Amino acid sequence: MPDLHALSRELQRKNDTKIVLLVADGLGGLPQQPGGKTELETARTPHLDELARRGVLGLSIPVLPGIAPGSGPGHLGLFGYDPLQYNIGRGVLEALGIDFELGPNDVAIRGNFCTLDAAGNITDRRAGRIASDVGQRLCEKLDTITIPGVEVFVRPVKEYRLVVVLRGEGLGGQVHDTDPQRTGVPPLEAKARPVADAASIRADAGSGGHDTSSEKTADICADFLRQARELLKNDAPANFLTLRGIAKRPAIPTFEEVYGVRPAAIAVYPMYRGLARLVGMAILDAGATLDDQMARLEAAWNDYDFFFVHYKYTDSTGEDGNFAAKVEKTEAVDAALPRITALKPDVLIVTGDHSTPSKLKSHSWHPVPVLLAAECARFDGSESFGEAQCLSGGLGQFEAKYLMLLALAHARRLEKYGA
Amino acid sequence: MPDLHALSRELQRKNDTKIVLLVADGLGGLPQQPGGKTELETARTPHLDELARRGVLGLSIPVLPGIAPGSGPGHLGLFGYDPLQYNIGRGVLEALGIDFELGPNDVAIRGNFCTLDAAGNITDRRAGRIASDVGQRLCEKLDTITIPGVEVFVRPVKEYRLVVVLRGEGLGGQVHDTDPQRTGVPPLEAKARPVADAASIRADAGSGGHDTSSEKTADICADFLRQARELLKNDAPANFLTLRGIAKRPAIPTFEEVYGVRPAAIAVYPMYRGLARLVGMAILDAGATLDDQMARLEAAWNDYDFFFVHYKYTDSTGEDGNFAAKVEKTEAVDAALPRITALKPDVLIVTGDHSTPSKLKSHSWHPVPVLLAAECARFDGSESFGEAQCLSGGLGQFEAKYLMLLALAHARRLEKYGA
Repeated sequence: MPDLHALSRELQRKNDTKIVLLVADGLGGLPQQPGGKTELETARTPHLDELARRGVLGLSIPVLPGIAPGSGPGHLGLFGYDPLQYNIGRGVLEALGIDFELGPNDVAIRGNFCTLDAAGNITDRRAGRIASDVGQRLCEKLDTITIPGVEVFVRPVKEYRLVVVLRGEGLGGQVHDTDPQRTGVPPLEAKARPVADAASIRADAGSGGHDTSSEKTADICADFLRQARELLKNDAPANFLTLRGIAKRPAIPTFEEVYGVRPAAIAVYPMYRGLARLVGMAILDAGATLDDQMARLEAAWNDYDFFFVHYKYTDSTGEDGNFAAKVEKTEAVDAALPRITALKPDVLIVTGDHSTPSKLKSHSWHPVPVLLAAECARFDGSESFGEAQCLSGGLGQFEAKYLMLLALAHARRLEKYGA
Repeated sequence: MPDLHALSRELQRKNDTKIVLLVADGLGGLPQQPGGKTELETARTPHLDELARRGVLGLSIPVLPGIAPGSGPGHLGLFGYDPLQYNIGRGVLEALGIDFELGPNDVAIRGNFCTLDAAGNITDRRAGRIASDVGQRLCEKLDTITIPGVEVFVRPVKEYRLVVVLRGEGLGGQVHDTDPQRTGVPPLEAKARPVADAASIRADAGSGGHDTSSEKTADICADFLRQARELLKNDAPANFLTLRGIAKRPAIPTFEEVYGVRPAAIAVYPMYRGLARLVGMAILDAGATLDDQMARLEAAWNDYDFFFVHYKYTDSTGEDGNFAAKVEKTEAVDAALPRITALKPDVLIVTGDHSTPSKLKSHSWHPVPVLLAAECARFDGSESFGEAQCLSGGLGQFEAKYLMLLALAHARRLEKYGA
């Protein structure tokens, strides 16, 4: 497997071009009936269609054929980080999702409040789905826990869900969940994974993988759980918690280092800001609407070379199974486009991190429409932006991880390889 | 990454088929205006179009999406040698470019004559761009240098540029440039790279990579530079030289060994003859015109199984930014085609090593048109040879390194894989 970042590091060239990556989350779709149109094809998108005539289309495969990605791998792929190489643990994603700023030595953990009976067995893995304000109060209590040698942060997420972050030197991320995934048994003890187990399909870049560091984390988790048990003993139904998705922040080289661009992210949802922060993008605050995001883009235009703009609602409407609403949200993206093209970016890419067909009400593996507009694109005769046109587009079908190389190439930001 | 040569070694089958690979350098292009035609699409190419109707088209990606290759990686890809695996150093390419016959133990170096002031600082990195005949005379002087245990060759390239080749056992190629890339400072000393540094994206197949061999090379370079300083001391402005692109000839398995064909190259420019020689092709001398090359092909037809014919001018006109001239040179390739088809090759491939759109005046990353004509091609309904037709061609878009497998397959020179 070629190391794409070794290539881009070697070949990167600075110039004053601007690149915009507009991600309409879950953009790809499916027709409701055979022979019908997808959400994107149904939507009236005059500006995207105009751009399609000036650019080149294609379909990106987020991870591999047949693999539907979560938001983490979906975005890492778009950012040019091989999603099979860079593993983002669930705990890390959960922490990103509440805008927690993870450091390179942090271990992040998803917590669930749960109910224990007198014998110490779990009777409810979600603590009766306590209200969020109850969860918040209990998190404040747990946040007082101190453990020698590490900082401990406990933050509420929603209802019975929380995030625990351990910050300290030499902590590993290879520790088993303590949630036994069933009731009538006690929670599991925090245990480091055996080394062989830790080597998975995904090189856990940040973990180091050797056991002593993860044993240290396991010991700290055990200490934390002992103290939590004492603190929560009178808080039934939330009289304990389980730890899941224990993971270290992956060691990811920064966007600026690997591509030589100054990147900024304009994203409303915390998880996407977190993913952008993970690769070293500047996070630009904006209001909640696309108009707010466009205004922020305009204001920041001179300060960065690369802009990642994230729009959530093409995905959430797809997840809801609401075809008409997804069409409407797609049209909203189209309506925002003139404010981007007015800035005259040298490269403008419109795509998604994965497909979310409303027919499936979930992320899917279907290749994702890609539109790349640039002066030196090889036009492919496309007349509009949609899955069918993308299928005959000039970029062909390609793994999402190559998109950044294409973006940089069209921005003339890559030297040629070899003489 | 699958080892393509392990596959072709195992599956190769001998027969009496003939394969011709006609490389029109830099063949792929871009339209001048959106919706316009590329150079290849503009050219009148009745013979190529006829061949397209009898064959199958596709687009090859020279290295990876977005990566524009130099001539070295471009051709290695076409020859089926992964250009990310086989690294051809600058010194090696420079030596190939003057037809120097490199042996497997040779270290090749680009040299620049430079000017030193009395304090030993560089005042001109190009020695006032001395005339080529001056450079040649000084190279003859340096060629008298002797170093125990190695042979030293010094050859002029042009003006202030030269090639130094060190031939001897156990020489490594991982040595830093001595050119400080600026004036007002002395030249750098020749130093071996640290081992970690040597491991790059490109497995430096030929170098061995271990340090003692490269330290030996560095010592020899230092000795050479000491002697050169003495010899050139009265030759200002060319009173010294710097060494750059120090590289070992990569260890490349031969074409005949990996594919089971007897290969020959008919190329006018030294660099392409050199690249062909690197993979073990016989180099057939021919005159400078396509007609001369065709005559040579006809004369050698019975002596080889595989012919690489290289045509330079589709690239150089593209580099000049001369759309009309590139169209004309493309038509010249077309005009030569009947002499090839008259020989009835079993497989005839017409392609480029990369795109050189005259719009960009440079090599580019755009996929390269491929035409493969063979009795057993799966015809794809193509009507002519051009980028748009290739986009819907039966070979699809594929990495150039797979082209040789396709060539051998269509020549029925590969057994099936597995039972």
